[in-house]
Parts: sequence; structure tokens; C-alpha cells
Amino acid sequence: MYLEDLPTPCLLLDRAVLRRNLKRMADHVQGLGGVLRPHVKTHKSQDVQAELKRAGGTRGITVSTLAEAEYFFAAGERDILYAVGIAPGKLDQIAGLMRGGADIKIILDSAEMARLVASRGVELGVEFAALIELDVDGHRAGADPEGSALLEIAAACDRPGIKLGGVMTHAGGSYDCKTTAEIREMAEQERRLAVRGAERLRAAGHAVPIVSIGSTPTAMFASSLDGVTEVRAGVYTFQDLVQAGLGVCGKEDIAISVLGSVIGHQRAKGWTLTDAGWMAMSRDRGTEHQAIDYGYGEVWGLDGRPLGGLILSGANQEHGIMTRGAHASGETPDLEVGQKVRIAPNHACATAAQFDRYMVIEGGQLINQWERGRGW
Amino acid sequence: MYLEDLPTPCLLLDRAVLRRNLKRMADHVQGLGGVLRPHVKTHKSQDVQAELKRAGGTRGITVSTLAEAEYFFAAGERDILYAVGIAPGKLDQIAGLMRGGADIKIILDSAEMARLVASRGVELGVEFAALIELDVDGHRAGADPEGSALLEIAAACDRPGIKLGGVMTHAGGSYDCKTTAEIREMAEQERRLAVRGAERLRAAGHAVPIVSIGSTPTAMFASSLDGVTEVRAGVYTFQDLVQAGLGVCGKEDIAISVLGSVIGHQRAKGWTLTDAGWMAMSRDRGTEHQAIDYGYGEVWGLDGRPLGGLILSGANQEHGIMTRGAHASGETPDLEVGQKVRIAPNHACATAAQFDRYMVIEGGQLINQWERGRGW
Repeated sequence: MYLEDLPTPCLLLDRAVLRRNLKRMADHVQGLGGVLRPHVKTHKSQDVQAELKRAGGTRGITVSTLAEAEYFFAAGERDILYAVGIAPGKLDQIAGLMRGGADIKIILDSAEMARLVASRGVELGVEFAALIELDVDGHRAGADPEGSALLEIAAACDRPGIKLGGVMTHAGGSYDCKTTAEIREMAEQERRLAVRGAERLRAAGHAVPIVSIGSTPTAMFASSLDGVTEVRAGVYTFQDLVQAGLGVCGKEDIAISVLGSVIGHQRAKGWTLTDAGWMAMSRDRGTEHQAIDYGYGEVWGLDGRPLGGLILSGANQEHGIMTRGAHASGETPDLEVGQKVRIAPNHACATAAQFDRYMVIEGGQLINQWERGRGW
Repeated sequence: MYLEDLPTPCLLLDRAVLRRNLKRMADHVQGLGGVLRPHVKTHKSQDVQAELKRAGGTRGITVSTLAEAEYFFAAGERDILYAVGIAPGKLDQIAGLMRGGADIKIILDSAEMARLVASRGVELGVEFAALIELDVDGHRAGADPEGSALLEIAAACDRPGIKLGGVMTHAGGSYDCKTTAEIREMAEQERRLAVRGAERLRAAGHAVPIVSIGSTPTAMFASSLDGVTEVRAGVYTFQDLVQAGLGVCGKEDIAISVLGSVIGHQRAKGWTLTDAGWMAMSRDRGTEHQAIDYGYGEVWGLDGRPLGGLILSGANQEHGIMTRGAHASGETPDLEVGQKVRIAPNHACATAAQFDRYMVIEGGQLINQWERGRGW
């Protein structure tokens, strides 16, 4: 089946681009002597995971929900890092996975939470493996790698029902970098502070088997992984306009796009309407403050090339408004009603989450359909 | 089961508030002698639809996707308006529904599309019923009610394979109104232009059985429905912070909220972290340009009342950052790790779409779980 014949809106995944992205990251991390623990929150698909393993250099997975943990454990993954600060209400389900044979690591960043986890571990008869989250860039959660709280948290993990598994960081601040030189510095800062936290804990007598860092930008621009045991990244599998805006990839590296149909025009305003609205693209406006603002996405032809500078400048639930972007040069084509277009996403994780399956394409043809999970 | 014991994040639906919202709109529209064609794109649930019918005053449904049409047709709805400009690629599926007994109306706003639809209707051996979309506020699609194109579209519907079913408008511009007086004017403008378009078509010899108008704000502030045969609205079922900001409802009328757990703090910054991020709330920032910007939502206690002026000011995929809103007065409480909060959404349609089920509550207890559909 050809792209022209697919229902709209649907989510396209270009397998050749996916494979190129996976190989590029695998080569980079392996070249630094590192190991990848891919974050499955972007793809949520055992078929994409199979491609990841085929590309090599991975050990275990990172998940953002227990639904992902359940899904990938059922698909054969055993070594799972649940990389969202634990809530005590989730421990029963995690204990169930552990009893079934899963090796799950949780994360936390306070002694208070470590004590709650330990107490529930004793009640449930399990020993939870906890990584201490370290704050390396002030953007979200985590303990200060240089602070006294870090040692208190580790001490609180030294009791029945819990064990210290290591430390982890997420350099989400890399998304605010303006140049790739800044991302490179951020990557080194993340590595240095993660290793510093681990060394302080070791000096205090704690074993720290795992030193886990990551984010797609810092993974891609890491120049050293000394002292790091694993790198987590997710969005690099698909890439997106935000990553292209950061300089992490080119637009030709974006593996997913939404297929839409032209449903009408408001010619006096230069508007072309499509049936791909925010329900298909998500409400993510990640390029809003980048050098080029693509609205809700960049409009491509069926060949995967930008189409006359068109962007999805407006979106209602099932309607999108395509207009000429401020960055456009050259001629903008007049699209016919019924014509199909591809729309590249700002943020791959958000757009993919709007769909239950990937229409896997290669050379302009549908070659497979891959299901994806969702929920919590 | 009590709210404290539910998994997080999950989507709560307060049935008493839902019923109050449904009754209020039903009473208002019936008081004006009108009939409601509820838009199911907000709730996508046959259980909510059953509540809607129980509230009375409805005839048929409005859908935004063919997946909704299939789901609600299977649940017993026959009279269906598909209120997104038709794409020719969808006509085969619609013909299939029609052959199965569904009475589906499609919409279009160009003679070109009317001819494409007619041609496919002849090929498929069906007669598609088309409403002409009228543009009453310049915000999206539709033909000018005063323009010559309107008569050309109607003429293009006068051929085998298609028939003119009427006219429809969507006053989405009401979302930009600053006062309820402006919404009232917008409602009257919508009614007047819809009726004007219908009268011009009738004067040209066309039958115009349906004159369909709608949007939650204009439905709620309509003072007359003269000449209108039906009113479409969807978000009023749940209401949300955007509607409250418009003056369409109070915050106590918001029937859905996301239950989240506190997972940590960054006390030096005044941040409290929760496991409800944008995957749970959606990326919708609908209150950004209203008088009060709630970030990604307003934080409530389990009793459904605002909690010390806290808002969800930041959101990553599965992390939310709660901080004191700029509008807050009084004291902001210190939340404990593991504690649960409810977060009211900016936009009910977008937040509900992130979940597969409603946890239906009344009096602080879970009383039911209602599934909801998704996809296209």
C-alpha cells in the first residue's frame, strides 16, 4: 500500500531513518566505551525495541510508567529502571513485578521517601533497589551532588526493605541550550556531577554499582563517559523538530510524521486546512522559543521533504491550519483538496503518544504496522 | 474505594458535577425551544452519553472522527453529524456506516469538494448528505454566508451521489471573547449568520432542513435560537479552566480532574513534584492568555477545592512541578511525599484524551469506571 492510500490522520514511521538514528547513537556511545539503557517512553513499542537491540550496545531499558514496565517485561525485558521519582502507592505493583522475576530499579531524592520505601519493602517482604536522583542542572528533581542531604539519603537506604543501587541524573536543562557547544558543556557537567555524587557516596562507605546519566542532547554530545556505567536516551530513536532546532539532528533524521489530508482552504487568508489537528500532533509547542517556530509542525510532501515553507500554524482538535512559515523562502504551492501531506512533529514523544500504532514505511510504501502501548 | 487509594495518575470524573452541567445546558437550550446535538468528542464514552440522554433535550450526536462514529453507532446512535470538513478518502467508510443503517451527515465548504463527494457517491451507490459549513467569525473553515460561493456549493450538491442536508456553523471565535457580553453578541452573530445563509439558499430554491450552530460558550449564552434547528456543544459536559476563565462556568463546575501523587520537593525553589506531567494533563496551555494563567492546571485537594493557590506551572512527560500561582493569596501548604492531589485541567477535551477510562467518583469515593474510545 502506498502513502496516498493510508487513512488520515495516521502516524508514519520511516524504518530506514529509524535504523540510521539507532546506529548513530549506538556507534557514538560504544565509541566512548559506554552502554545504552534506552528510554522506551518515546516509542512504547516492542517492535522498535527489537530494532534498538538489533542496533546493539544496549543493556536493559528505562521506563516512565509502570504500564511500560509491565508491557516490556511481558515482552522479555528484565532489567528495568523506572526513572520517575517513586510514589509509595506504586510499590505493591513493583513488588509484584519483582516477584515475577523483573529486576526493577526505582529512583528517589529524599531520606523521607527512602524510609517510606524501606518500610513498605519490609511489609511486602522484598528489597527495593533505589537509585538516588542527582540534580545536575536545576531543572527538575534530584539531590545536590555536593550537599549533605545526599549522604542522609544513602544512609536511609541502608536498612531492611531497600538497598542503594546507584545514582542517576537527567540533564533536561540541555533543552535550553542555545548552541551545540553549550550542550557539550552540559554533557560534561552532567557526567562530572554524577561521578562526583557517586564518589562522595563511595567515600562514605556505600557501594554505588550504577552511575546512570542521560538525555538525548547530552548523550549525543558527550565527549567522555568516564565513571559512567550507562547512558539513557529516548527521543533520538525518532528525533523531532526540537532536536533539529538544538542541532542534535537534521530534519532529514526525523523518523515519524503525521499523514494528513487537505480538507479545504480560506484562500483570502492563505490558509489550507487539514484533518490533522492537535489530537494528532499533540499540543506540544516545543519550537515556540527556538530560532524557527514551526507552530504545531512542519508540512512535508509525501517524499519527506519540506513543502514550500508550510507549517501547521494553528490546531483545533481535529483541524489544522497550514500557512507559510515566517522562515519560508521560495514559492508556496497550492494544495488540492484531498491531497495528502506529512507533518513533522515538534516533540516525538508527545505526537507518538496520540496514536496506538505506527504505520511503518520504507520507500513510500507501507511495510508493516507496529502497535504501541499507553496509559499508566 | 476512596480517592486516597486510587493509582496515580488517573482521571477522575465527578458524577454529581457532570449531571449538574448536563441539566444546566439542557434546561437552557430547551428554555429557548431548542434541541441539543451533543458533541461526543469531549467525552468519547457511551456511559457519559447515557447520562446526556437522561438529562434530555438531545437529538443525535456530533462526532469529530469516524472512530467516534463507529463506536457510538455500535452503541445505538443512528443520527450522526461528522463535523470536520470531509476528506474524500473517508467516504468509503462512511458509505459502509450508511449501508449498516447510520444516518450520517458530512460537512464541506467548497463546490470542488461537493463534486468530489458526489462523484464518489455515484461510484459507491450512495447519496451523501452534506451540510455546508458557514464561516461566522473568521476563525477556521466555512463559506461566507453572504458570498456567491455559498450558492455555487449548494448548486454543486444538486446532483446524483450527494444531497444538501443544511448548513452548520462553529463559533470557535467565542474562545477569544473577553467578557460574557461579548460571548452573548457572538452567539447572536452566529445564529443570525447561520439563519441568513439558510435563507439565501432557500431563496435560491434549495431545501435546508438543518440549521446547526454551536460551541459551548455560544450555546450557553444564546438568547435566541430562532431559525436554528439544533445546537452543538461538547465541553460543557465536563467544563474546564478555560471555560471558567471565559465566565461560562465556575471552577466548582469542572467535573474532571487528574489525581496525582507528590513524589518530591525542591524546597529552596518552592517546588513540589508530582507524577502528573503532560502525558496526564496534555500539553494544552489554554489559560496562558486568560486573566489567570494556571500553567498546566490548578491543584486541588481531594475535596475538590483549590489548594493554597498551587498550580502545575511546569510539566515534563511524567513529572509535574507545582508552585504557588501568581494569583494566589493566603498560605500555601507544605505537601507530604505520597500525598495525593487533584489537578483541574485547562482543556477538558485534551486532558480526557490522555486516558482510556474515567474513575467515576461521588462523595470522595469511586463508584464506577467508564471506558472511553480514541483514535481515528
